[in-house]
Amino acid sequence: MNITLRTILKDSDPVAIREIASDTAFFSEAEIATAGELAVETLAKPDEYLFIFAELDGRVVGYVCYGEIPLTSGSYDLYWIVVKLSLQGAGIGQMLLAAVEQEVRARNGRQIFISTSSREQYAHTRAFYEHAGYSLNAQLTDFYTIGEDECIYRKNVL
Amino acid sequence: MNITLRTILKDSDPVAIREIASDTAFFSEAEIATAGELAVETLAKPDEYLFIFAELDGRVVGYVCYGEIPLTSGSYDLYWIVVKLSLQGAGIGQMLLAAVEQEVRARNGRQIFISTSSREQYAHTRAFYEHAGYSLNAQLTDFYTIGEDECIYRKNVL
Repeated sequence: MNITLRTILKDSDPVAIREIASDTAFFSEAEIATAGELAVETLAKPDEYLFIFAELDGRVVGYVCYGEIPLTSGSYDLYWIVVKLSLQGAGIGQMLLAAVEQEVRARNGRQIFISTSSREQYAHTRAFYEHAGYSLNAQLTDFYTIGEDECIYRKNVL
Repeated sequence: MNITLRTILKDSDPVAIREIASDTAFFSEAEIATAGELAVETLAKPDEYLFIFAELDGRVVGYVCYGEIPLTSGSYDLYWIVVKLSLQGAGIGQMLLAAVEQEVRARNGRQIFISTSSREQYAHTRAFYEHAGYSLNAQLTDFYTIGEDECIYRKNVL
């Protein structure tokens, strides 16, 4: 499987992002809209957010959206990481995560934070981050809604 | 002292915000620019962020900027709270904080998060939040820079 990575955002990416996010059947309508919106904002205002796209035969099959956290020096946040449902488990997510870490180091970043939900639905997601060397740094009770905490994972990339 | 509160943003507010933030001698240039930018963005796109201004004789002497955290249901973040240096300690900060809590409740919000720095410079700020009923919920090591953690305070407003 010949996956290529691309960091330059294209006009077609907001649609591609919404398609693969919908395809996972994992995200709510509001989440899908927000994910697309970050690409729209970045097309209007370059470097607002950073992106890496994974492509197979010229089609987007996964992506990450990340950026330096405002008013910090070297702390990055990974906002979205999505892989097309039929290709999950093939290492594309780990490839995207490794690419982000390399890029963060190149930008003199020190650490990456990833927030995710405490819900059972996200057990696989949390295991994916832990497997990649991220550890649970804090947990904010009832953050998303009552009974659904925010789990903040962190990895030092220096 | 007759302080009035105003929630409708005016064209003159970005300048007023930068003036009182500079006046405190507390914020960096980058922080002052960011604080003003949130008002500029909200003038262009209403409800992007929420504001409450404290005015004395028609002049802005303090303000708060807050909003519902995207993709949460009822969790709010207090982004900025600033009171003009010469009027600090007169209860304007507590008045603004109480007004935010009332407004968050009116919007069916459940809780308010406030992030601040672990630096000694912010000891007074942390005491101010603790006095107002906020408790330290999590602390992210080296978040802002090496040796400067993010302290995440939380208050249930229900």
